[in-house]
Amino acid sequence: MTDTPDAAALAAAQEAVADRAEIARWAERFALLSDPSRLALLYAIHCCPGIRVRELAEVAGMVETTTSHALRLLRSAGWVTSTRDGRSMRYTLADDAAHQLLHIIGSGHAPGIKHVGDGARHSF
Amino acid sequence: MTDTPDAAALAAAQEAVADRAEIARWAERFALLSDPSRLALLYAIHCCPGIRVRELAEVAGMVETTTSHALRLLRSAGWVTSTRDGRSMRYTLADDAAHQLLHIIGSGHAPGIKHVGDGARHSF
Repeated sequence: MTDTPDAAALAAAQEAVADRAEIARWAERFALLSDPSRLALLYAIHCCPGIRVRELAEVAGMVETTTSHALRLLRSAGWVTSTRDGRSMRYTLADDAAHQLLHIIGSGHAPGIKHVGDGARHSF
Repeated sequence: MTDTPDAAALAAAQEAVADRAEIARWAERFALLSDPSRLALLYAIHCCPGIRVRELAEVAGMVETTTSHALRLLRSAGWVTSTRDGRSMRYTLADDAAHQLLHIIGSGHAPGIKHVGDGARHSF
């Protein structure tokens, strides 16, 4: 870990940061996670895929309009997807990246809930 | 995925969001990632653990003072650690969470670089 990176490693680093548009897209997505309420909604959705807006509002202790607004932002940024169910909307995490990120920060599933994206997970 | 979460699942969600202080700490950490330049520095550090400030500035196309300032913020938020090497500072990712997060967003290592925190990784 204390070796000086050699020229090849530094060239690899240069390449790693070359796609600034992609890095900027991730920065925009992470900006959405800087709000504790929005992050709490993601924990709850990770825990209970298919959870409804009304249930999310109750779980997170937020009013329903604020919850809906936060969910719209999270959906726009690609963190969650929604499906209509009668007069209500149900929410799930949008992709495997969102799922893995929630695990990293210690967010778990409700008992019996299966992983989203099993079989299509990133390898480490 | 479209099953209605039952009472036990909703209770689990309630528990998942109970530690608001912890969720707020993560929200603060994620706020640091909302800047493309800071995020580019993390890609470069992930690629080349032990990279120096001067090298980071060159790789990211930033001036050195701006780079140092960004690195101080990243260190305060627990994303990177630094070690002094003569007159320069070397940077590595602070923990396994940082390491895994970088992999999720498609950031790789330079050839021959080993994983940080192998053997102490979160299980999914």
